[in-house]
Amino acid sequence: MQRITIDLTQIHDNYINLVPEQDRYLTRVLRLQSGGQFQAIDGTGKLYICELIARDPRAVTASAQITEIIISPDRPLAPAIALICALPKGNNFDDIVRACTELGVTTIYPAISDRTLLDPSLQKRSRWRKIAQEAVEQSERLTIPTIADPQALQAIFSQIPSAGMKFLCEARGEHPHLLTCLQARSIDNTPIVIAIGPEGGWTNAEIALASESGFQLVSLGQQILRTITAPIVALSIVAAAIDIHVLVDSE
Amino acid sequence: MQRITIDLTQIHDNYINLVPEQDRYLTRVLRLQSGGQFQAIDGTGKLYICELIARDPRAVTASAQITEIIISPDRPLAPAIALICALPKGNNFDDIVRACTELGVTTIYPAISDRTLLDPSLQKRSRWRKIAQEAVEQSERLTIPTIADPQALQAIFSQIPSAGMKFLCEARGEHPHLLTCLQARSIDNTPIVIAIGPEGGWTNAEIALASESGFQLVSLGQQILRTITAPIVALSIVAAAIDIHVLVDSE
Repeated sequence: MQRITIDLTQIHDNYINLVPEQDRYLTRVLRLQSGGQFQAIDGTGKLYICELIARDPRAVTASAQITEIIISPDRPLAPAIALICALPKGNNFDDIVRACTELGVTTIYPAISDRTLLDPSLQKRSRWRKIAQEAVEQSERLTIPTIADPQALQAIFSQIPSAGMKFLCEARGEHPHLLTCLQARSIDNTPIVIAIGPEGGWTNAEIALASESGFQLVSLGQQILRTITAPIVALSIVAAAIDIHVLVDSE
Repeated sequence: MQRITIDLTQIHDNYINLVPEQDRYLTRVLRLQSGGQFQAIDGTGKLYICELIARDPRAVTASAQITEIIISPDRPLAPAIALICALPKGNNFDDIVRACTELGVTTIYPAISDRTLLDPSLQKRSRWRKIAQEAVEQSERLTIPTIADPQALQAIFSQIPSAGMKFLCEARGEHPHLLTCLQARSIDNTPIVIAIGPEGGWTNAEIALASESGFQLVSLGQQILRTITAPIVALSIVAAAIDIHVLVDSE
């Protein structure tokens, strides 16, 4: 069944007021008739099974009736995963948002680090949110990750939960592997926070700040990774560690 | 020190005949003078420390003297990693080649699966090889992965070593996690082969063929991943499992 993303404000009682774009998509692209079923998500973990309602000729757009609401978190026993990622050059953050959403990130903090020059436009921020929404639809998730506004590292550190497992990935130096650290600890509902630096790495001041904020320095392995690949690798490792743990726990 | 990639045929005794593009890069872009040092790799695991030689005014291009040869595999104790990947739509294979090269893949087999429509042009194949070469330079590796010509799955299966650990990633069904399977076995020099299907997954005939060829069916986790993300996730897990294993072994 096809899925669309709606805003919570579109819901009134048991009905969804479709916006023109959704109306066009459902009736023209998918050619749904009155009574035709589709799914909607509001990005907070709810899935609505809906039926299109015959359009009143006087109405501007169509509406739909909600026939069922399914509340099901994407990973029932999994912790929240936050990614703090220094903004790379160009449009590379688009690919990071897309792939990390597929991998189940719950919050993304674009970080302005000492080695970041860029101050992204408002246009880019809304673009990232749209990419995350599309990736949620494509990967059949129910929860759209929150994408914070770009901020300095210190401001981000003050917002993240103090109880989480926090890892700062650092290519230089001898640090334990992220996977080793995750598997050495019990993964419960404690949030996991991963911080990935810019091209050229974190500065010593940033590393010191992270240590003070409870971050453990970890390695992503022997490879030298581009700034666009590193977050995807880190999230792949986190997702695998969680999946294995959750599977073992639920057996 | 800056690094260029050379072809083995450019080496004569202790000298490298530079091609015009390399000459321009070293003398115009990097502004190296006679005696200036640079590094060259031939893609087979050797690193050459070189000195530029003053150009004979009558010569068309410059040459360089090799002052030192360093033979050092990228991961001393690591097995070869082969990726069999069904060709995705558009230019998406470019990103797969780039990221998987960073993650240490040694051979890439573009696969024409039952659900692949595309027969890529010769131009694309040489483009993938160029991308792999650039990724090797950027990630400071010494070995350029071999990229096979696109072939049907059966032809690929007949070429891969029979002794390897072989995993076919499959989203449908209940299969053990790739990471669980890797960690349950001892990673020595046995090659690791990973097969990733097309959009829509492998057909039942392909899964049966893979099973006959000694492939174990594995899962990459609960996520629904795009065909471009799945190989990067799989290689991230393989690289992490190898890194942890090699680090433990060498302690």
